[in-house]
Amino acid sequence: MTPTTAVRADGRTADELRVVTIERGWSEHAEGSALVSFGRTKVLCTASFTNGVPRWMSGKGRGWVTAEYAMLPRATNTRNDRESVKGRIGGRTHEISRLIGRSLRAVVDTKGLGENTIQIDCDVLQADGGTRTAAITGAYVALADAIEWAREKKFIGQRAKPLIDTVSAVSVGIIDGVPMLDLAYVEDVRAETDMNVVATGRGLFVEVQGTAEGAPFDRRELDSLLDLALDGTAELTRIQQSVLARIEA
Amino acid sequence: MTPTTAVRADGRTADELRVVTIERGWSEHAEGSALVSFGRTKVLCTASFTNGVPRWMSGKGRGWVTAEYAMLPRATNTRNDRESVKGRIGGRTHEISRLIGRSLRAVVDTKGLGENTIQIDCDVLQADGGTRTAAITGAYVALADAIEWAREKKFIGQRAKPLIDTVSAVSVGIIDGVPMLDLAYVEDVRAETDMNVVATGRGLFVEVQGTAEGAPFDRRELDSLLDLALDGTAELTRIQQSVLARIEA
Amino acid sequence: MTPTTAVRADGRTADELRVVTIERGWSEHAEGSALVSFGRTKVLCTASFTNGVPRWMSGKGRGWVTAEYAMLPRATNTRNDRESVKGRIGGRTHEISRLIGRSLRAVVDTKGLGENTIQIDCDVLQADGGTRTAAITGAYVALADAIEWAREKKFIGQRAKPLIDTVSAVSVGIIDGVPMLDLAYVEDVRAETDMNVVATGRGLFVEVQGTAEGAPFDRRELDSLLDLALDGTAELTRIQQSVLARIEA
Amino acid sequence: MTPTTAVRADGRTADELRVVTIERGWSEHAEGSALVSFGRTKVLCTASFTNGVPRWMSGKGRGWVTAEYAMLPRATNTRNDRESVKGRIGGRTHEISRLIGRSLRAVVDTKGLGENTIQIDCDVLQADGGTRTAAITGAYVALADAIEWAREKKFIGQRAKPLIDTVSAVSVGIIDGVPMLDLAYVEDVRAETDMNVVATGRGLFVEVQGTAEGAPFDRRELDSLLDLALDGTAELTRIQQSVLARIEA
Amino acid sequence: MTPTTAVRADGRTADELRVVTIERGWSEHAEGSALVSFGRTKVLCTASFTNGVPRWMSGKGRGWVTAEYAMLPRATNTRNDRESVKGRIGGRTHEISRLIGRSLRAVVDTKGLGENTIQIDCDVLQADGGTRTAAITGAYVALADAIEWAREKKFIGQRAKPLIDTVSAVSVGIIDGVPMLDLAYVEDVRAETDMNVVATGRGLFVEVQGTAEGAPFDRRELDSLLDLALDGTAELTRIQQSVLARIEA
Amino acid sequence: MTPTTAVRADGRTADELRVVTIERGWSEHAEGSALVSFGRTKVLCTASFTNGVPRWMSGKGRGWVTAEYAMLPRATNTRNDRESVKGRIGGRTHEISRLIGRSLRAVVDTKGLGENTIQIDCDVLQADGGTRTAAITGAYVALADAIEWAREKKFIGQRAKPLIDTVSAVSVGIIDGVPMLDLAYVEDVRAETDMNVVATGRGLFVEVQGTAEGAPFDRRELDSLLDLALDGTAELTRIQQSVLARIEA
Repeated sequence: MTPTTAVRADGRTADELRVVTIERGWSEHAEGSALVSFGRTKVLCTASFTNGVPRWMSGKGRGWVTAEYAMLPRATNTRNDRESVKGRIGGRTHEISRLIGRSLRAVVDTKGLGENTIQIDCDVLQADGGTRTAAITGAYVALADAIEWAREKKFIGQRAKPLIDTVSAVSVGIIDGVPMLDLAYVEDVRAETDMNVVATGRGLFVEVQGTAEGAPFDRRELDSLLDLALDGTAELTRIQQSVLARIEA
Repeated sequence: MTPTTAVRADGRTADELRVVTIERGWSEHAEGSALVSFGRTKVLCTASFTNGVPRWMSGKGRGWVTAEYAMLPRATNTRNDRESVKGRIGGRTHEISRLIGRSLRAVVDTKGLGENTIQIDCDVLQADGGTRTAAITGAYVALADAIEWAREKKFIGQRAKPLIDTVSAVSVGIIDGVPMLDLAYVEDVRAETDMNVVATGRGLFVEVQGTAEGAPFDRRELDSLLDLALDGTAELTRIQQSVLARIEA
Repeated sequence: MTPTTAVRADGRTADELRVVTIERGWSEHAEGSALVSFGRTKVLCTASFTNGVPRWMSGKGRGWVTAEYAMLPRATNTRNDRESVKGRIGGRTHEISRLIGRSLRAVVDTKGLGENTIQIDCDVLQADGGTRTAAITGAYVALADAIEWAREKKFIGQRAKPLIDTVSAVSVGIIDGVPMLDLAYVEDVRAETDMNVVATGRGLFVEVQGTAEGAPFDRRELDSLLDLALDGTAELTRIQQSVLARIEA
Repeated sequence: MTPTTAVRADGRTADELRVVTIERGWSEHAEGSALVSFGRTKVLCTASFTNGVPRWMSGKGRGWVTAEYAMLPRATNTRNDRESVKGRIGGRTHEISRLIGRSLRAVVDTKGLGENTIQIDCDVLQADGGTRTAAITGAYVALADAIEWAREKKFIGQRAKPLIDTVSAVSVGIIDGVPMLDLAYVEDVRAETDMNVVATGRGLFVEVQGTAEGAPFDRRELDSLLDLALDGTAELTRIQQSVLARIEA
Repeated sequence: MTPTTAVRADGRTADELRVVTIERGWSEHAEGSALVSFGRTKVLCTASFTNGVPRWMSGKGRGWVTAEYAMLPRATNTRNDRESVKGRIGGRTHEISRLIGRSLRAVVDTKGLGENTIQIDCDVLQADGGTRTAAITGAYVALADAIEWAREKKFIGQRAKPLIDTVSAVSVGIIDGVPMLDLAYVEDVRAETDMNVVATGRGLFVEVQGTAEGAPFDRRELDSLLDLALDGTAELTRIQQSVLARIEA
Repeated sequence: MTPTTAVRADGRTADELRVVTIERGWSEHAEGSALVSFGRTKVLCTASFTNGVPRWMSGKGRGWVTAEYAMLPRATNTRNDRESVKGRIGGRTHEISRLIGRSLRAVVDTKGLGENTIQIDCDVLQADGGTRTAAITGAYVALADAIEWAREKKFIGQRAKPLIDTVSAVSVGIIDGVPMLDLAYVEDVRAETDMNVVATGRGLFVEVQGTAEGAPFDRRELDSLLDLALDGTAELTRIQQSVLARIEA
């Protein structure tokens, strides 16, 4: 198995990310925002800061971070009906919203937030595979900016460090027996095994979600996917840090 | 009343549009698309072409054009709950979706479409007043491109001319007694009277929706608003035509 | 164009209202009520007075007037499914409810109401075109009676004058090139242009909603429709005043 | 126990119905209709005839009769939120709709209807107790007229006799130990036991629904309520027959 | 008519209950619970005790008892869609939930409960007719245990006697002219008349719900069904008392 | 790290499953069923076989297996509102339903099923951690029996082998630094890392879902959890096989 020499439809090697861009501050209204692209996948992430926390959390001196994910109806190749029109949120939407929220909370010290809420919204403007991993990666940037905004507004303490690490995510999968990084849609539908890995800047796992789409997978395949994913999130961490550094300077 | 000499918060004269841009073909998936900006208002319009019509229209040899409008939760200055999460579409959303659909159908000869459907989606990415008028103006461009796409794919006849005119829209309002064109959000909330006018490229009215927000208005005020609006839609028509010409060349 | 000589299916001239009756106090429970008929269109309007206002309005010393419109399932020629059974309100219902609420608020000084709410319900018992205009016209009578009731109960001050004008509404449209007043259903479906005009007793516009159902319309057509509508609302104002005077005496 | 000498708030004796009126043909659109009043309780009943039956009944040569019951929001003394706005039908509404449907089907030979559906709608315009019993009583008249209409239109056979009996309903209850007929709202809330009885013109039971609101009741009390109810439905049968005879003549 | 000599599909005589078992304390979490079986019908009843009452009851020094009934999707012979997936509760479910709640409240002195709520849940694990009557019979046992639990926890007074009687329920019906007790599903679908009777341990009626499924029924038939039902509930009362005695000893 | 010597609240060692029982054929109606217990967690799994497949799958000669998961309201220590009453399915329910469906489909050759559907329902009667893993483990048994039933009924071919492997699932987690197998609820809430592993009888992975509940986890911790989980699923496989063998004999 020599993944790095395989060549893919878009010319990438097996262990190569698509072109990743993060346009920080895309929205003029939100306290933090980022338009993130993983190749043709484009997700608009906004972070909305509000004072107070949901009732069930009140009085504990802790903040709350939560997330909602959605797709525009024509983000995909064929149009999907709006969930607002159907009157109900689908299972996939629910699942990804929860994943994004958990991933961000894993790097947040909620005591440092005070009793404030940051609501993350990730709206997929264009989809080409990896929308949930792009969303997590962009949402971290929006979250970091909203926290900085709150610090400037003195809604959180000047010495508080609510962010204890960074977080990013990438998909990996096995196609024709070859482990590959950051699957585009045409690759995703062909993958025998599909895995989404969320990891911190320090290289620790936050979420590992592997699914046998075709045949079940063995331990050796699992190991090679995890290796590849950690390389990918390390690269995404560098991009996040560079974007956050550039503008703060 | 000398509207043209009034100066507004953003430096415009009373009869001046905001900067209007139309980024044609923004979406790589949709058969037609446009990212339209009226100042800070940004709306992504996509046109999805499908063969066949809703059951109630079937067998009449006519096509169908319909539209849905929505806002991202943080398009606005403070976040709004998602309609998908609330499980129901609000009245304002319904109203604007219907307006966009009627406005487009007014310039479509549905016989020319054959039994095909074009579904327009207008999603507000950022809102600063005039989202429905920007949506109509951008949707026309997406619609025109989807029709061209269908002609190339031979889903509609080569000689069919489904578009019998162009259509655009603009808001007008009276603020401190002065009629003004293309209201930004801060102007919209102060307007005594607010009117949305949809007109064709030939200068005919498709929709006139005037509402007294503060005090009822008289016939003379109504007349001055209609004059101003027709100047605005004439300018928008030129922008649409320029954008459509540029890329087809 | 000589509209007054045209003769319609029901024998009316082009500028003639249908027989309009307003049965005041039809409901024995509501604080104000009216069963209004525009020909065969019958709408039961009730006004429910309650102390307090919605939370978002609280503490401003102002009252609130809001409205809901609905149709009985067999108000129309063929039965429509109930919106309660479908589990959602349709766009048309939403749109008309909002229109009625705005129209009434245009003639109410909410300070004069104190922190009280008047909820208007307009339920169409039988429909033959013009249900929204009949609803507004009848709702004004119900509203006036509810305010009088509240004055008697001392829920609002004896000198307070919450009603600053009267309000009524009528539809107009162009059929076979002839502008016509107060369209019945068979006329409404044939109209090239359809306009609903809401005006005050003093002859000022509250809402102007014109829609090109067939071909777009020009400025001259718009003007002739507005003239016709103001004549119609002036006549409706006289009927409202006569009904309110008769019973108060 | 001498019920007939007790005097009630409205001057009735214990075994006396309120004034019952049935305005046949109230709706100009429905195939059958009746505005029924039991005192101040007013219910508009319409019968909508359509060809065909629900899919699960198809191909059996039988028709279908079904019913929906609802209340206008201000039919009652204080306003209730609309079920369409709440997005769901309440338990009481469901229960009464089902009761009306079962009651009518008990006197219908569905073979005689052919594969046709009659949809009954009972909308309470004003409520003062006994809305479900008034609804059943009025719905029978609307149903009879819709069947007659279908016979004239030859949708059902000229010799078919889909109606095998008549049906009406009345409430009875025990108040201060005295069995009383046809409870008004103020009586209903005070009743220890409340029973709704649906019976045919021949005096047979279709539904008996007795509920201990206060203390459980014994067999003797149950017997006296059943006696009283059968007297009431006999009287309602005479009123129905008189109304149906009058107009057919 | 000699019901006791008739023999049924399952070998019972006409006046014989199915085998009834009540497994008390089935759930390890609930304050009271019972798995009740009427033959193959199995219903899990739990009673959840919480401090406080719904807002509309607050401050009256009274408690509240309410109930919800539901069926597992494959409790029946063919699968039914989940009401949670359909997004709405069906009429039958609503109706039975309300019946169970009323039946239990008829034997509760809510003053004795203090301002506490007991929520009963009756979930049908397997259905073979009589699910509502089994549910009421089992729910009483769960309720009694939850009250005993609350007394031990001192949430209600040691001398308070919230239970003023016991309650159970049984179905009766007429099949081929013979009144029969406790109908199994195959009997239920054949019954001309179907009646559910809820009675207290002292033999008083709480609910009598008789429905003509086939032909309407006369007074003599009604009387024989009531006799049969009271014999059945007397037997169920003995079973309840024996179960409650056994474990408390 | 010596997990096997740690002792847990319930006396188990770190690598020990709770007592697992599978009561096959619990439901008398379903084509396959199992009441599975993992300690105090009890899940009723039923498999409903129907001819035909959803429309989007039709005509491909393949069958379909899908699953729905739900909890009774008082399955847990404190009562949860019913999703049917709330009118919407929660994210957790959606997520687990999808997981069960994917897990079962991973061991099904849908060609072997023919165009038939097996609907799995997993209803949690009592919850004490690990409800999704118990559900998958029990659902496999219900599925196997439904396939056997269909073979006997000749709905699927006698030589068809739709089941290509067995499948079971178990949770693992790290508590106080020690990897533990099959977490009970009190352990689950304390776990720093929580992982659900679905594996086939041959020891291949179907799903791996690891989540950092407290601190992110490193590769070594992940490896030890995977080892533990595969031991657990191997033991569950033996229990499944023994249960299926026992009754088929």
